[in-house]
Amino acid sequence: MTERPSKVICDLSVSVDGYAAGLDQTEQRPFGDDASDGWGGRLHAWMFETPERRQAELDRLATVGAFIMGRNMFGPVRGAWDRQWKGWWGDDPPYHTPVFVLTHHPRSPQPMDGGTTFHFVTDGIESALRQARAAAGDRYVSVHGGATTVNQYLAAGLIDELRLHIVPFTLGVGTRLFAGVPPLDLEQVESRAAESVTHVTYRVLR
Amino acid sequence: MTERPSKVICDLSVSVDGYAAGLDQTEQRPFGDDASDGWGGRLHAWMFETPERRQAELDRLATVGAFIMGRNMFGPVRGAWDRQWKGWWGDDPPYHTPVFVLTHHPRSPQPMDGGTTFHFVTDGIESALRQARAAAGDRYVSVHGGATTVNQYLAAGLIDELRLHIVPFTLGVGTRLFAGVPPLDLEQVESRAAESVTHVTYRVLR
Repeated sequence: MTERPSKVICDLSVSVDGYAAGLDQTEQRPFGDDASDGWGGRLHAWMFETPERRQAELDRLATVGAFIMGRNMFGPVRGAWDRQWKGWWGDDPPYHTPVFVLTHHPRSPQPMDGGTTFHFVTDGIESALRQARAAAGDRYVSVHGGATTVNQYLAAGLIDELRLHIVPFTLGVGTRLFAGVPPLDLEQVESRAAESVTHVTYRVLR
Repeated sequence: MTERPSKVICDLSVSVDGYAAGLDQTEQRPFGDDASDGWGGRLHAWMFETPERRQAELDRLATVGAFIMGRNMFGPVRGAWDRQWKGWWGDDPPYHTPVFVLTHHPRSPQPMDGGTTFHFVTDGIESALRQARAAAGDRYVSVHGGATTVNQYLAAGLIDELRLHIVPFTLGVGTRLFAGVPPLDLEQVESRAAESVTHVTYRVLR
């Protein structure tokens, strides 16, 4: 087995002031105060503006062989798993691959329709990455979010490519990308504009 | 006299994590630890990469009829003006117009070669803007920096257009653009990439 077989990428929508999430996530409102006008809707609206954009996002997900996400991105349940929460995405989540959920609370894998299986990893981010690499084959491993999880992987030097989608508003509070992450040298690999978002891809140099 | 005769712009180089300045400014090192490898050199290197880029920056400055800057951008002198500091830029600064320097300490205007005159404004940002508008004619007023001054003008709703130059590294500490500024709605007016920087122009909607 070669070292680092899969490239580790991270796609993240951020406000111009660098927030990847606002406040007030609840089960009814996973994206905060208001699903359409709130921070979640505003950060992610660019993905859904046209059928082409939506398809491009699905195509992008298909380049990924395994996802890693934090527990708060998976759901609103805190503490022990007192019920069978299966994510925000319904019976057939858009991942269609293994998804490794970071948690302190053990739980059996949760298979879903369409090839997605949620695996619950209790022994840390490096273990989750090892498992994700093994599952991803020659496709990407995506550190899918939220920002706290992304920051942990950035701080550990485990992300190869950071793809920011910079959305034209400022949020002022919430979870900031790069919070607690030591200074990074980046290489701008690509930068392109759409009408209401700027996409910038950075290679993380150290 | 029409209201708001001049458009108020702000050009600012920022790191990917939103810092417009690092730490450790001194008279010998106006851009912090090391002028070329330090944060100042890294934030502004894109302007000087090619003769074309340098010329484009000079052309941009020429669209401005009056500049506003904070005292710390003007120089390292703190407290009363105990000596005739004339800015970082030598006898012939690149502004060639009136420059309004915000300070708590009165001082007579300081004419320089080439048409630049430094005016010292002690009665606040709105007064400085009024004076800059009167001086700018039909050219732009530029809130030139540093980030603390920019943030004051943004918080007061006095900037029309924000032009960010996003440079591929993170700084982690320093003065952050948008610190203390209430949430802003922005309109992405232009976004374009150069090899080592992404330029994004936002209209400030409120």
